[in-house]
Parts: sequence; structure tokens; C-alpha cells
Amino acid sequence: MDHLHQTFSVRFTYSVLFTERLFDYTNPLLADFFSQQATADTRKKLLFIMDSGVVDTHPDVQDDIRTYFAKHADLVDLLADFLVIPGGEIAKNDSDFVEQIVDAVDRYGIDRHSYVAAIGGGSVLDLVGYAAAISHRGIRHIRIPTTVLSQNDSGVGVKNGVNYRAKKNFLGTFVPPVAVFNDSQFLTTLDDRDWRAGIAEAIKVALIKDRPFFEWIEAHAEELAARDMPAMQYLVHRCAEMHLQHIAGGDPFEMGSSRPLDFGHWSAHKLEQLTNFEIRHGEAVAIGIALDSLYSQQLGWLTESDTNRILTTLRTLGFALYQPMLDADNSAGVLKGLSEFREHLGGQLTIMLLKGLGQGVEVHEMDADRIRQAIATLRKTDSLAFQTYKVSETL
Amino acid sequence: MDHLHQTFSVRFTYSVLFTERLFDYTNPLLADFFSQQATADTRKKLLFIMDSGVVDTHPDVQDDIRTYFAKHADLVDLLADFLVIPGGEIAKNDSDFVEQIVDAVDRYGIDRHSYVAAIGGGSVLDLVGYAAAISHRGIRHIRIPTTVLSQNDSGVGVKNGVNYRAKKNFLGTFVPPVAVFNDSQFLTTLDDRDWRAGIAEAIKVALIKDRPFFEWIEAHAEELAARDMPAMQYLVHRCAEMHLQHIAGGDPFEMGSSRPLDFGHWSAHKLEQLTNFEIRHGEAVAIGIALDSLYSQQLGWLTESDTNRILTTLRTLGFALYQPMLDADNSAGVLKGLSEFREHLGGQLTIMLLKGLGQGVEVHEMDADRIRQAIATLRKTDSLAFQTYKVSETL
Ligand SMILES: NC(=O)c1ccc[n+]([C@@H]2O[C@H](COP(=O)([O-])OP(=O)(O)OC[C@H]3O[C@@H](n4cnc5c(N)ncnc54)[C@H](O)[C@@H]3O)[C@@H](O)[C@H]2O)c1
Ligand SMILES: NC(=O)c1ccc[n+]([C@@H]2O[C@H](COP(=O)([O-])OP(=O)(O)OC[C@H]3O[C@@H](n4cnc5c(N)ncnc54)[C@H](O)[C@@H]3O)[C@@H](O)[C@H]2O)c1
Ligand SMILES: [Zn+2]
Ligand SMILES: [Zn+2]
Repeated sequence: MDHLHQTFSVRFTYSVLFTERLFDYTNPLLADFFSQQATADTRKKLLFIMDSGVVDTHPDVQDDIRTYFAKHADLVDLLADFLVIPGGEIAKNDSDFVEQIVDAVDRYGIDRHSYVAAIGGGSVLDLVGYAAAISHRGIRHIRIPTTVLSQNDSGVGVKNGVNYRAKKNFLGTFVPPVAVFNDSQFLTTLDDRDWRAGIAEAIKVALIKDRPFFEWIEAHAEELAARDMPAMQYLVHRCAEMHLQHIAGGDPFEMGSSRPLDFGHWSAHKLEQLTNFEIRHGEAVAIGIALDSLYSQQLGWLTESDTNRILTTLRTLGFALYQPMLDADNSAGVLKGLSEFREHLGGQLTIMLLKGLGQGVEVHEMDADRIRQAIATLRKTDSLAFQTYKVSETL
Repeated sequence: MDHLHQTFSVRFTYSVLFTERLFDYTNPLLADFFSQQATADTRKKLLFIMDSGVVDTHPDVQDDIRTYFAKHADLVDLLADFLVIPGGEIAKNDSDFVEQIVDAVDRYGIDRHSYVAAIGGGSVLDLVGYAAAISHRGIRHIRIPTTVLSQNDSGVGVKNGVNYRAKKNFLGTFVPPVAVFNDSQFLTTLDDRDWRAGIAEAIKVALIKDRPFFEWIEAHAEELAARDMPAMQYLVHRCAEMHLQHIAGGDPFEMGSSRPLDFGHWSAHKLEQLTNFEIRHGEAVAIGIALDSLYSQQLGWLTESDTNRILTTLRTLGFALYQPMLDADNSAGVLKGLSEFREHLGGQLTIMLLKGLGQGVEVHEMDADRIRQAIATLRKTDSLAFQTYKVSETL
């Protein structure tokens, strides 16, 4: 009997919209979105799921949302209850939260043409995106990222996920949002660590793809550290744009062997786990960038001066570049991150290194001794910065 | 600041291959597949997950698989252990099984370029497809369907899922397999109920799309009931082909308002639940087809003679067309299936009815009294067939 062959393409499209004060009822952005999406046949529901860190620092946000959708009651049915999820990695570590969201979808009768809108950092967004993706085989989700990292990286892409038995993103899917709203006003309430952490993702993408962007960050490192908002807005926009281009230009669902933008990430993921998620993803990425830059220098691929420009930029921004867990027992320690990284992405081990500022290259193996040597360099040179970090952490 | 707009397409491709004795080591089909997929850079692993109903009725299958991949050890690393999951709807009802599969992925280090192959009925396939889709954001999965229904419908499509709090397919994703192998040899060991059940899906698709195919089934109903294999092979092939065409020609991931092939399904899903999954999906679909055909006749859309041809074909095949749960308390009963069906698919209620043999039409409401009247007709006319069904069920 003849065999059958199936081929089809699925087109995905969404916008990443930049604004200030999204929920001010005079701001038309959200209303425009819902009126473009409206269809004659059914009314749609809208459930908000919020990061507790946002609720705590923006006590008016729930009222603002109610006012906004009361003015636009013709467009969508706002559900009266908001679901609040504890912010930070805990949102991804406890499977109860997935269940809470799925139960809310069931209880409120959210169907595949209705919306779940997540407001929060990358952790809450990853969680909500995952729960939305698996409910009814995918309900529409809107992302309203509220951290630097989620506005410039995690919130604009196609991935979601939760941790499973403490393994980062072990469960997840590739599903784009229907829209992303980046409101810079949210960034004003971030604590310094979260303001800073997301900048690491911009440095990551700049170093492997865009030297002028790296040099811009280098030149504005002090302004950024001093929480200059226009500088941050530029950084977020350019970084988001580069992430979007990488996704569309490559292999969006990572089915082949092309890689996501993950310079500095093999050790970062492991460090997050080894520190029990006490360091932020972006803080871990900063360390990972430093480590892989020093490694690139050892290979003779990066000059000492370029390496120092990277380390200095990271330190000017306030990043600690050494973390004691880098020296944890090797078999279970950070080196184990190499094999876990390979396993998570599948196929051959592929690590991004640098052959210059703005020029990433892929390698397929790393040498354990060279890694240890790079760690030793960080341990020696970063003691001062690390003190500062410990102080801010215990505040 | 400028807004950003993202658009990309993702291409999916897979084959549905028809064969007999897939695991006979002289059969090149599986080996060819793996050698086409092989890449120089890494070896890939292959984990088999099996339906207990297949293991029980095909005691040699595990040895055959080991022999097959021992002969083809260059192509892929077969994992020594097989995971066996209880067959039938229980596989989708108990979330422990999702966890068992995810844990196996973790334990055996199955990455996104490795394979999970599921051998079994639609239930085990739906479960494994779901667990594979969420592990590492999607590992490659191969389907080896072993029931009529999974070979001609569920196993060839893009959906997977499990039940949640007894709601059918409440959790799931749209993810195509990398390949489907339909081995008709497996069908020989099905009990009569499962042999028959899958035929309902062929009648469903024929009635809404392809009158000649319906007439072929009508003409071969006795052969099919007598378990004629060549007739079944033709039916499975044609039905699988129509499902593939519908998916590729429409909206594969059901993002808009176009509908899956779900004639007769709104009441079927609810009946499965109301009977505690004691009737098979295909048995419920046969009842749903009968119900919606009678309803179409009441609207004057289907002639009495065409309606009788449908009912007679179903009965010749051995289907019972009445189930007492059709008359369960209305508020919680089968009528509730209408709203749950709308909710699961999202948007406006859309029900497929018939305007003739081979001609489906969509409606957006159904009248409760007419539904009750159709149920009353089934109750009256099906008492004999129902007796038969009860006897075979208690065997
Ligand atoms: N999906 C992806 O593609 C992707 C990419 C990169 C990172 N990530 C993930 O993102 C997560 C990290 O996200 P993150 O860096 O945004 O941190 P986060 O979400 O963990 O949030 C950090 C803290 O900030 C609080 N917070 C959030 N918004 C706030 C605001 N406006 N004001 C005050 N406090 C606020 C939170 O409550 C939390 O306590 C990690 O789990 C990481 O793995 C995902
Ligand atoms: N994903 C989809 O698109 C889709 C479409 C239609 C139906 N479905 C789902 O498929 C499921 C029904 O699948 P099904 O009808 O294949 O039944 P099933 O998977 O529930 O299996 C029925 C019984 O047959 C046994 N069995 C399987 N293969 C056998 C063999 N070769 N010999 C002997 N026994 C065997 C099983 O162990 C089980 O006891 C339902 O959950 C339904 O919702 C999914
Ligand atoms: Zn990152
Ligand atoms: Zn069906």
C-alpha cells in the first residue's frame, strides 16, 4: 500500500509593543489590540495572572486594570478575580502553580479563543506561558513583562517552561504569545539586582552578534548602573529586536541543530541550580559570560584587552563575577552543566565562544582544565566585587 | 519607540508508512527511517513505550524489537528497558503516567534529538505524545498505532493529550510525530470492540466529505464486521489519508475558527465521561453519528432513507446506538456536552451536521428538544442492538 507524506507550515505572528503606563485608560494600545482581535461571533474572556512582586510594588495596578477594561467593556470580558503567583524562580519550581492556573482556566471557562495575560518577571511569564500552552492544547496568552530580562529576552521569544525536580526548564513548549506589551514604567520598581540582571542578556547578544551594541553598552555602563531610564529603554528595545531577529531568521522551534542565543549559559543554568536559585538567571549569565570570555582568551581567540573590556563592563554594571559554587565538587559541580546543557538542547554539544567583540563561534568540546583555570582567574580577580555582592544580598 | 513585529513559519513534515510485521528484521522500513535521520555528529537513543494490551497479545514483540535493533545497531541506540503502560483510557486519566515517562526521559538522558517510540492504542499514543511534547520542550516521537482508531485517525494527526479531572484532553499540545508506522498485523489481536470502534471514525469522515467512501463502507460492512483484513487495510488507508489532507489543507493547529473532523463528537466526548470511559471513544462516536444524523433528518436536511442507510451500516458493523447515559439527568447529562465542546474548541459553538451523505454543514446552535427527540428514537429502535452490546461487554 502507498505510503502517505504529510507536509504543512504553520505561520505565527505577534507584535512586541513598547509603551509607558499601559493601564492608564487613556493609553489606546491594549484596547487597539483587542479591537483588532474582536470577532462578531463570540465574546472573549481575559484572565490576568500577576507576579506578587509587581502587585506589592504597584498597589494600584489591579484597580487600573479594572478601570481600563470597564472603559473598554465592549472589547473583552475581564474576569473579576486576578490570580497572584509568588514572583521569582519559586513560580517555576513548584508544580502546584501549574495546577492553579489550569484549574483557573477550567473554573472560569477560558477557551482557546480567550486570553490569559501574564504580568511579571521571566519566571511568572515562563510558568503562565507553559500552563496556557498545555490547557486545551493552547489558549491565547499575552505577555506583559515587568523586568529588564523579561522585556528584552525571555518575554519576547517563543519558549516557556517550568523546572522539574530542580532541573531548569525540563518541562516546556515552544509557543509564541499573541502579543507582548513592554511597559518601561514597571522597571522603576525593580530592585538593583533585577535591574542589573537583565543587562547580562543584552551583553550576551551584543558580544556574539553586534560589536557596536556592545560598545554602546560599554560607554553607557555607568548610566545604566545609575538607573538611567532612557539608556535602559534603548538597551531593552535593541536587545528585544535582536532576539526576535534571531528567532525568525533561524529555527524558531529549535528542531534542527541551530542554537538559541545562549552564550554564557551552559554554566549559568548549572550555577542557578547549584545555588538553589539564590542567584538570578541574569547574574548567573554575567558569570557565564566572564567564564567563557576568559576561556576564549586562553584559546588565543580573544585578546587580553578585549577580555578586560568585557569584564570591566560587567563589573561597572555591578555584577559579581565569582560565585563560590563555581568551585563546588567537580563531578556534581559546574562542569556537569556541560553535559546537562547538551542533553537539554539535544544532539552534539555546542558551545558559543568568542573570536572577537561581536563575533561568536561555536565549538563542540570544552577542556575541563581550561575551565578550571578560567574559574581560578575569576576567583582571584573578583574578590572585591564579590564582597559588594554579598552585602547587597543580605540587605 | 518603534514597535516590533514578528512573523515566521515553521514547517512540519512526516510520513505515515504502511506495512506488515514492522519488527521482522528483514523489514527495512524502520531501518531506512533511522538511516535517513542519522547525522554524523551524535548517536541517538531510542526508548520504546508500550501499551500493556499489545505486550499481552504479542508476547514476542519485545524480543523482536531487540533483535531488529541489534541487527541495526549502527543506526540508533536502543534502550534496554521498555516502559509498559496500562492500555486504554486509564493511561490518559492518571497523571502518574505522564510523570513516569518524563522521569524515564530524565533517567535515560533522552534529548531533543533522540526518540521516544510509542506502540499502542490511541490512549497510550496520546499520553506518550503529550509527555514527549513537554519534555525538554519536545523530544522526537514516533507513533506505532496498534488499533484501528489510532491507525486511521488519532495516530496520524497532530494532537496529543491527557484527561484532567476527568475532562477529556483538557491538557495537550499540537505537535506532529516524526513518523508513523501502521502495521496491520497488530490489528489481528484486537478484541471485536476495538476492531469495530475505529470504523466509526472512517464513517464520520466519509459522511461529511466523501460519499463514495461511505458507500464503500456500506457495501463492505459485513466483511468488516467479519474481520476481513484486506477490507480493513483499505479502510484504514483511505481514512488516514483523509485525516492528513484535512489537517494540511486547513488550520493544522486550530488557531482560527476552522474545525477539526469532529462530526458526532460533541455527545461522544460527554458520553465517554458519563460512562466513566466504559465505552470506547469509537463506540461513543458511532452513537454521536447516529444522534446527529437523526437530528439532521429532523431539520429536513437528510432524507429518511439516507438516515436509515447510516443507522443500518452502523448496526451491521455491530455498534449499539443507544446508551442509557444518553438519558441521564439533563443538566449534568449529555446536553452539557454541547457547552463543554464549545469551550474546549473555543470561540463560537460549531457543530457539524449532514445535508446528505458525504456533505457536512456547520451550525452554531442545537435545539435541546430536538436532541431529546433524537435520543428517544435511538432508545426505541436500538433495544435489540443494545442487548447484544451488553452481552459482549460482560464477556
Ligand atoms: N523563556 C525564555 O526564553 C527565557 C529566557 C531567559 C530567561 N528565562 C527565565 O526567566 C527567569 C528569570 O526572569 P527574571 O530575571 O525576569 O526574574 P524573575 O521573574 O525571577 O523575577 C525576579 C524578582 O523580581 C520581581 N519583580 C518582577 N517585576 C517586578 C517589578 N516591576 N518591580 C519589582 N519587582 C518585580 C519578582 O517578583 C521576583 O521577585 C528565569 O527562570 C529564566 O530561566 C526564560
Ligand atoms: N489525538 C487524536 O487526534 C485523537 C483522535 C481520536 C481519538 N483519540 C483518542 O484515542 C483514544 C482511543 O484510542 P483507541 O480507540 O485506540 O483505544 P485505546 O487506546 O483506549 O485501546 C483500547 C484497548 O485496546 C488495547 N490494545 C491496543 N492495541 C492492541 C492490539 N494490537 N491488540 C490487542 N489489544 C490492543 C489496549 O490495551 C486497550 O485495552 C481516546 O482517548 C480518544 O480520545 C485521539
Ligand atoms: Zn538567558
Ligand atoms: Zn474521534
